Amino acid sequence: MNNSKESQFSPTPSSGTQSTGTVALRWLGASLELLDQRLLPAQEQWLTLATASGVSQCIRDMVVRGAPAIGISAAYGVALAARQATASDWRAQIQEAIRDLAASRPTAVNLFWALQRMERVFVGCGTPSEALARLENEAVAIHQEDLAANLTMADYALEAMGFSAGAEGAAQVSVLTHCNTGALATGGYGTALGVIRRLHEKNLLKQVYADETRPWLQGSRLTAWELMRDGIPVTLNADGAAAAILAAGEVRWIIVGADRITANGDVANKIGTYSLAVLARHHKVGFMVVAPSTTVDMDLQSGADIPIEERDGIEVREIRGIPLAPEEVSVFNPVFDVTPASLIDVIVTEKGVVRNPDIIGMRNLFG
Amino acid sequence: MNNSKESQFSPTPSSGTQSTGTVALRWLGASLELLDQRLLPAQEQWLTLATASGVSQCIRDMVVRGAPAIGISAAYGVALAARQATASDWRAQIQEAIRDLAASRPTAVNLFWALQRMERVFVGCGTPSEALARLENEAVAIHQEDLAANLTMADYALEAMGFSAGAEGAAQVSVLTHCNTGALATGGYGTALGVIRRLHEKNLLKQVYADETRPWLQGSRLTAWELMRDGIPVTLNADGAAAAILAAGEVRWIIVGADRITANGDVANKIGTYSLAVLARHHKVGFMVVAPSTTVDMDLQSGADIPIEERDGIEVREIRGIPLAPEEVSVFNPVFDVTPASLIDVIVTEKGVVRNPDIIGMRNLFG
Repeated sequence: MNNSKESQFSPTPSSGTQSTGTVALRWLGASLELLDQRLLPAQEQWLTLATASGVSQCIRDMVVRGAPAIGISAAYGVALAARQATASDWRAQIQEAIRDLAASRPTAVNLFWALQRMERVFVGCGTPSEALARLENEAVAIHQEDLAANLTMADYALEAMGFSAGAEGAAQVSVLTHCNTGALATGGYGTALGVIRRLHEKNLLKQVYADETRPWLQGSRLTAWELMRDGIPVTLNADGAAAAILAAGEVRWIIVGADRITANGDVANKIGTYSLAVLARHHKVGFMVVAPSTTVDMDLQSGADIPIEERDGIEVREIRGIPLAPEEVSVFNPVFDVTPASLIDVIVTEKGVVRNPDIIGMRNLFG
Repeated sequence: MNNSKESQFSPTPSSGTQSTGTVALRWLGASLELLDQRLLPAQEQWLTLATASGVSQCIRDMVVRGAPAIGISAAYGVALAARQATASDWRAQIQEAIRDLAASRPTAVNLFWALQRMERVFVGCGTPSEALARLENEAVAIHQEDLAANLTMADYALEAMGFSAGAEGAAQVSVLTHCNTGALATGGYGTALGVIRRLHEKNLLKQVYADETRPWLQGSRLTAWELMRDGIPVTLNADGAAAAILAAGEVRWIIVGADRITANGDVANKIGTYSLAVLARHHKVGFMVVAPSTTVDMDLQSGADIPIEERDGIEVREIRGIPLAPEEVSVFNPVFDVTPASLIDVIVTEKGVVRNPDIIGMRNLFG
């Protein structure tokens, strides 16, 4: 697909997949539209961003979230910076936009990867108009590649789950997922939720249990909404109920995304993921991480090196301005945790899978 | 202490303990006052109940909650039924009130225990006035004994944690707790939270991590509020963050209450407890259950026999009328789970402790 001629890109998964109408972002050439994920599911409101600083603020405020979607948005932010830049000072202005976007959130590495890729293009540009054209093309390419990676990962994941290529409705499986890793978190389709979509398309899915995912409620607000829109059977549960669900024995796989994967196969992902990995091992349930290779950070040795973002305690103390706790109470609000590779059965990327991940398996695929 | 002369009982823990002003219920002789726990911490509103059916409705609606507090409230409900009863039909009316109260909630056995104890007194009564006097005395006794049991359990628990009787500020410990098991959940002082109070009184407590405890947020709304009132250092966290807290290595004990303990030492408690027990074992952290012996149900062989209450999905889908999820989404909302005895290091009751609980240890203490 090539929409760059019209400077627009609003992805629709192609052949072999059921179309999902859900997207997190639309590139209109002169602006980026972001679906305000803070307001879902009550309101579907799109924000139009014409500046890099606007995009950066939207990433900080979680208008857009999800590691791949953050990376894509940041890339479009750089393209917008090229459009805004004045002829006399375009280099400094684009450089400053890249710096500002890089400071928006610390944990997901896709952000830094996308910005580095944009920067490599940027340094090769000789004129503002060249920068404008090439940076926009690069951002669209990042977006398109992410969507394509999601579709590839879904194939690899089903194979890793033991379904042969032709399997349709053979033996239906129930899975549990955490946070939102769908069309709203990516360039479209989804990582872990892409796998779930693919299972559903092939009539291999019985039921998705979705953790509500406190404190930001990505599960309730985004995953449940996305799956219901696409007619995929979903049951919502409090995060604390996941163990009881696993104990009941129906769920065979826990499938999650990732914000950063280190050289030894450790995975940073939404707070609560590590708990699920321990529970999966205890209940002999498979634990699968699905993420594009842009999430892999071979420069970090292990999860201990990943900067874990702590957000304001107000996310735990309040919901939409309603106090849930004494307002002066101390809150520990890390929004990611680290799952050690030893608890992960398989990491799925568009480059292939790493089973029982360790430094050697990771190096073989990403080294 | 003897307040029965004035037909009032509003407990204040006696000698050797710091007074906590927090109580869930007050008996005024002709009525029961319940602190409306649905409105905490935003509002402290007391409801005055003069009828058994009013008390029953308050238990159903979780105005009052916590296994021991439910049992005590139900006992007072029977006393109110004796007060309401017409001379001609008093037996049938009190019997009907007991039936109605017994149907209010299914999981905590303290409710049934308290009602059986009230019923045994009731069947021995020859006149309405005898019933009135004796049932009221019995309810006050149940209330007083629960408070006394909490104080005894705190002593046993500290011993089980390895603190000698005279230990004060020796080596401070951090603990993690779930739900609310304090003065608000009991006749006063608390079960697991009573242990935490005692640790604090003896300067043995470093920090309490309190799970917010979705969906009803007993941790945010009640535990944080209670502990802050008493100046006990508390940090609130999303339930999904407990694993990261344990991985950090500071917490040495997870201390929780119980709604029912079966003959083999399995424990039903607030949803999310089982998850913590698995995590405690994985991280080699102690897992302690603190509950009065009225929570023990030797008639049930194992946790599989405990009826687990499922409440309306609206508790997960909404908070105070604000939608958090698509309103038609299916929700799995069990409000308790079962922790197998094999994951429990010690059960503490006022009758003594059972280490590494199993059918033999349980029978030795409760058989």
